[in-house]
Amino acid sequence: MKRIALNGIALTAFLAFSLFAQTLPDNNAPALMPWPASMSVQPGGVAIDSTFSISASGAGAKDPRVQDAIDRTLVRLARQTGIPVAPHAAGTNETATLRIVVEERDHRPPQRLGDDERYSLEVSGSGIRLSADAPLGALRGLETFLQLIQQNTKVTGTAPASPGFSVPDVTIRDEPRFEWRGLSLDVSRHFIPAADVERTIDGLAAVKLNVLHWHLSDDQGFRVESQKYRRLQQYGSNGLFYTQREIRNVIAYARERGVRIVPEFDMPGHATSWLPGYPKLGTDTGPYEIGNGYGILSHLMDPTKESTYRFLDGFMGEMAKLFPDEYFHIGGDEVAPKEWNDNPRIQAFLKKHHLADAKALQAYFNQRLLKIVSKHGKHMEGWDEVLHPDLPKTVIIQSWRGQESLWQAAREGYQGILSAGYYLDLMQPASEHYAIDPMKLPPERKKHLEEEGRAVPTELTAEEKTKILGGEAAMWEELATAENLDAKLWPRLAAIAERFWSPEGVTDVGSMYRRLEVTNRWLEWLGLTQRSGLELMRQRLAGGMPYQALDVFASLLEPVRGYSRHADRYTTSTPLNRLVDSIAPESDTAREFRNAVDQYLAAPKEQRNSEALKEQLLEWIVKVSAARAVLERNSLLSENIVAADTVIGVCKIGSDALLYLDPHLTPPSAATAAWKQRSLAAVEEAAKRQGDVLIAIVPGVQKLVEAVEVGTAPAEPEAGGAEPPR
Amino acid sequence: MKRIALNGIALTAFLAFSLFAQTLPDNNAPALMPWPASMSVQPGGVAIDSTFSISASGAGAKDPRVQDAIDRTLVRLARQTGIPVAPHAAGTNETATLRIVVEERDHRPPQRLGDDERYSLEVSGSGIRLSADAPLGALRGLETFLQLIQQNTKVTGTAPASPGFSVPDVTIRDEPRFEWRGLSLDVSRHFIPAADVERTIDGLAAVKLNVLHWHLSDDQGFRVESQKYRRLQQYGSNGLFYTQREIRNVIAYARERGVRIVPEFDMPGHATSWLPGYPKLGTDTGPYEIGNGYGILSHLMDPTKESTYRFLDGFMGEMAKLFPDEYFHIGGDEVAPKEWNDNPRIQAFLKKHHLADAKALQAYFNQRLLKIVSKHGKHMEGWDEVLHPDLPKTVIIQSWRGQESLWQAAREGYQGILSAGYYLDLMQPASEHYAIDPMKLPPERKKHLEEEGRAVPTELTAEEKTKILGGEAAMWEELATAENLDAKLWPRLAAIAERFWSPEGVTDVGSMYRRLEVTNRWLEWLGLTQRSGLELMRQRLAGGMPYQALDVFASLLEPVRGYSRHADRYTTSTPLNRLVDSIAPESDTAREFRNAVDQYLAAPKEQRNSEALKEQLLEWIVKVSAARAVLERNSLLSENIVAADTVIGVCKIGSDALLYLDPHLTPPSAATAAWKQRSLAAVEEAAKRQGDVLIAIVPGVQKLVEAVEVGTAPAEPEAGGAEPPR
Repeated sequence: MKRIALNGIALTAFLAFSLFAQTLPDNNAPALMPWPASMSVQPGGVAIDSTFSISASGAGAKDPRVQDAIDRTLVRLARQTGIPVAPHAAGTNETATLRIVVEERDHRPPQRLGDDERYSLEVSGSGIRLSADAPLGALRGLETFLQLIQQNTKVTGTAPASPGFSVPDVTIRDEPRFEWRGLSLDVSRHFIPAADVERTIDGLAAVKLNVLHWHLSDDQGFRVESQKYRRLQQYGSNGLFYTQREIRNVIAYARERGVRIVPEFDMPGHATSWLPGYPKLGTDTGPYEIGNGYGILSHLMDPTKESTYRFLDGFMGEMAKLFPDEYFHIGGDEVAPKEWNDNPRIQAFLKKHHLADAKALQAYFNQRLLKIVSKHGKHMEGWDEVLHPDLPKTVIIQSWRGQESLWQAAREGYQGILSAGYYLDLMQPASEHYAIDPMKLPPERKKHLEEEGRAVPTELTAEEKTKILGGEAAMWEELATAENLDAKLWPRLAAIAERFWSPEGVTDVGSMYRRLEVTNRWLEWLGLTQRSGLELMRQRLAGGMPYQALDVFASLLEPVRGYSRHADRYTTSTPLNRLVDSIAPESDTAREFRNAVDQYLAAPKEQRNSEALKEQLLEWIVKVSAARAVLERNSLLSENIVAADTVIGVCKIGSDALLYLDPHLTPPSAATAAWKQRSLAAVEEAAKRQGDVLIAIVPGVQKLVEAVEVGTAPAEPEAGGAEPPR
Repeated sequence: MKRIALNGIALTAFLAFSLFAQTLPDNNAPALMPWPASMSVQPGGVAIDSTFSISASGAGAKDPRVQDAIDRTLVRLARQTGIPVAPHAAGTNETATLRIVVEERDHRPPQRLGDDERYSLEVSGSGIRLSADAPLGALRGLETFLQLIQQNTKVTGTAPASPGFSVPDVTIRDEPRFEWRGLSLDVSRHFIPAADVERTIDGLAAVKLNVLHWHLSDDQGFRVESQKYRRLQQYGSNGLFYTQREIRNVIAYARERGVRIVPEFDMPGHATSWLPGYPKLGTDTGPYEIGNGYGILSHLMDPTKESTYRFLDGFMGEMAKLFPDEYFHIGGDEVAPKEWNDNPRIQAFLKKHHLADAKALQAYFNQRLLKIVSKHGKHMEGWDEVLHPDLPKTVIIQSWRGQESLWQAAREGYQGILSAGYYLDLMQPASEHYAIDPMKLPPERKKHLEEEGRAVPTELTAEEKTKILGGEAAMWEELATAENLDAKLWPRLAAIAERFWSPEGVTDVGSMYRRLEVTNRWLEWLGLTQRSGLELMRQRLAGGMPYQALDVFASLLEPVRGYSRHADRYTTSTPLNRLVDSIAPESDTAREFRNAVDQYLAAPKEQRNSEALKEQLLEWIVKVSAARAVLERNSLLSENIVAADTVIGVCKIGSDALLYLDPHLTPPSAATAAWKQRSLAAVEEAAKRQGDVLIAIVPGVQKLVEAVEVGTAPAEPEAGGAEPPR
């Protein structure tokens, strides 16, 4: 192990750093994400070179998860640095660069909710030491270690740094805030092959998420091989399903990385894909076809037949063996009751069993389901709608409705997790998800309740708070495929992971974005394709033409938000190969531009320097004009020509605004007012959706236009008419 | 199947096209590589959409290779287009979009040299029809089909094309020129994991290469698990070897793709890695260590001991079962005889057996080896040095020495393949490899022989020509790892593949580069990483800093050629993570710049337009200046600061030259002469290696400077001294 001296080292940023534990990240801190519970940084560091080795000791060191994690760490370290570290560079306890101590061995076969994930990591003159109570802590700590590796950099005014990599001296004590930190992944609307699911698990583990909630069936596809009810996959999947062998492999893969797999089979709604193979399960007489369109389809299982429960008992028995986790998700959301309401047989059943309505019938169904789930040794989990006074407190509620619903469940004694606010398919920026906290009512919601004179829910008691287990991001796949899945998940999911892991007070958005950028690049070394996948898609769109200009154009766009794309009648066979499919949900370029505009406008007028902004806008005009030639020629791109013209127009308005804002040029006049009015109208128009995309730089330009001061004097002819002075 | 009408279609380029078969590509032809034996293009085409399906009929259609190829084609078509084609979209013979007919089934278990690879592909109003005599032809034809898919594009002056993809109407009859078309891949100097080998096989199959020659042992590592002689891998591999299971998987993977695997175990030289585990095999007494440095190491097997042959018999017996191919490569190259010459025991053996020298001893060794190889049912293959009058004609010679050596062997009745001229580790441009033909003596070699008054080898007779089976590119891994392997192979290997497959007359370099660019992008859809891998490496180098400027700087560089990097004492543990490791062997940017310079200088003086060249040079100055900040900060990049400064200087000289070349500015003067002399000296200096890199744009700039006309009059003071007029 080599020590890094103080001159010319990796630790540039840390010299001015507090030597005491800090709980909040600052701008110079290592870009860890999620931010640890506590960290201090000291000057100095440990060099990473080809002599690097890892040892493990303690009872828990023999856990195969620890051994596998060490092997993976060596491979990843070699990838992150390009240094040929031997794949079996396991050193002895005395000489290893990184010494791991894992106190206890965890003998329970499937991983469980509440497993100990604590660890501490110390990098100092005596080397790197990672300590954990149990195997999972070692896995979490190794991710932190890998995030800490960085190339040595030269500090201004010092000698050049020695070529290579190192980790800074730190003391980290870390543990998660919530014990349930997950991603709910829909593989029904578009199938996601096992290899892509495994890649996603790599990402989850890297940012210390610990649950993959696998949404395995829905109207559009049944994705699991049943060996007992083979017609489920034969008639319900179009051939796109996981074999049981694949599922076992994915579960083992996840377990090696400290990620639980919770299966969901959604019922009695969102269940059309069960019915082509087993029409008797349905309320209608059939025949059925797999759903091709989206939205809430009408078909429901029939909760009034005993045969339904016999089937589900047989099915769950099989699945309970296949999926080792204690929890079993039965969906239960969005039951459109029409099929039940219109059916005389169902109505007669309601009457006979004194069930008031469809909601009561669903509760009846859930109670029957609960017995089956319990019989097979599992805890039941369901979406908000399953909540009903008759259900026992062992049920876990996943809330897509929000904190109020979640808190209400907690008050009633139910454990729950929050998903509302973490829907990655809504195409919101990371900052919006990051602001959502399972324990805090969003301010705008509070204001809304107050304005409507409705009761604002009071804070939970300490006891009730323990019922909130954490949260899950959700990725629904109507408009995503395996090809662009990574870009829909990453890097935004890392910000959500921080919300679930890091202390409640870690909320600074600027720091989040700074660390998210670094984390995003770091995740690429795992093989995640959020950048490269979209690049390839754009190259495909560009055909043989240069794609660089198209990349610039794409970097200024975002997909329309919410579910407004669905109105365009997408089906499961619609190709998702257009420009809107090949852009990131959040434009980093636009955010940086907005920040630059804010910084420019915040400066005193006489000190403002508009050069960088001007150059930026000019470059966009040039590049997007070049991209336009590509759009014109290629048949899949021509729908974006209007957006390109609008971008060019917006950039010109922004350039004009910078001229008006220049205090050294002609003072404001009435002509300015006319220009401003016209420009604001144009900007407002440009802010609207352009097909399926939004022009993400519009808000920045709008701020510039709004900041232009308007004169009251009539326009002087010599002021140049309505055009800005140049 | 949908027909594509004539207005607004994918076929833009083909309207003006010959309706008759053509054997040479022109600028408007589909960018197929390798170019087929014969092709004609007609107006029109067939749409590729989500209804696409494939059928296969004929006796050969049941071959699992055909079935697997169909499945892969559907997956790849979906990737190339983004269209959700069902993975089992096998249509019936009547309705399928692509109908495959394979006449014969090939029942021989391992694939063999000379297997029929012919196919024909017809795209027309009646659909797409692929016909082949045998399974391999179907595989080759499917690659051609996938290369033909392109996005519909708008033709100038017509209505917009319908959004989507199609293949143009063509008639192709195709078969290879040579039956042995391979890549020799060294996995000893740096280990290449099985997954990376499989990815390479994907690439080989895509460009219709059919042999992976697996160089499995050398001084620096023994890469195969022997179950009979376990100490080979235990002491000879540092843990980096293929298990037999992995090898069987790779062989099966290759066979599915129509690629033979020929193993090489190099002996009696290049064999140090055998000796740590089995020192008795060596001439010296040992103990031995695996080679860490490069070059020709001194250790040799001992050919005088019977125990050596007993060992090799046992080993070959095991390997002959593991590798099903008929051919077995025993290396035999570069035997440095010192260890034999210095050893009294060996010298006594020579005397006793009437062997003249080390060369004779190696021939003795080879004859013994040949008996063993034959005993285990294989044909022996070796490098040039194994050629010896005593060897039977069944031996195949792989020539690293060149056509003369290869032709001599053919005259003596030996079959052979050419590798000289196809060494991808020499960092030559594609055009140089492309110019090499196994059947033609390179003109410069011919000239050299004539100048020295030596005999120029006469053309081979028709009979002798049949002995030339083809060729193999070679990739030695001293300075490459799995991380940048793809960039060292691709796209240059595709140009060599064309040399081995396409008719002898397909030699136009401009056409080759045009099609190579398209093929290079197409290969990315297989998962090859020649672009993305280097990008990631440069991002790692950039650390947290912007990498875009670094990318521009990198695009202007090439690694030093030949083996001049080796002088810097690289060892197997030297990290290959510097800028030189993350650049392409050939700079496309520099080639395009050179072509632009040629075009500019070729125009009549008064019609020259220097704007584009000026802008280009200015952009490089700006971007490389920005990259310099990244170089200064990051410890692994600081060695390239001088190169960056040189690039900036060269670009300035180029800009100045363009001013001198402008006929509208001041006429030539003596000052011009002084500038030219100084600039030529600077350019000459800049053409030298800058550390491990070359500045690839220097030749283009040099041409500009050389074209500047020099006045004879003494310098006028008002002409601006030695600076160009601005």
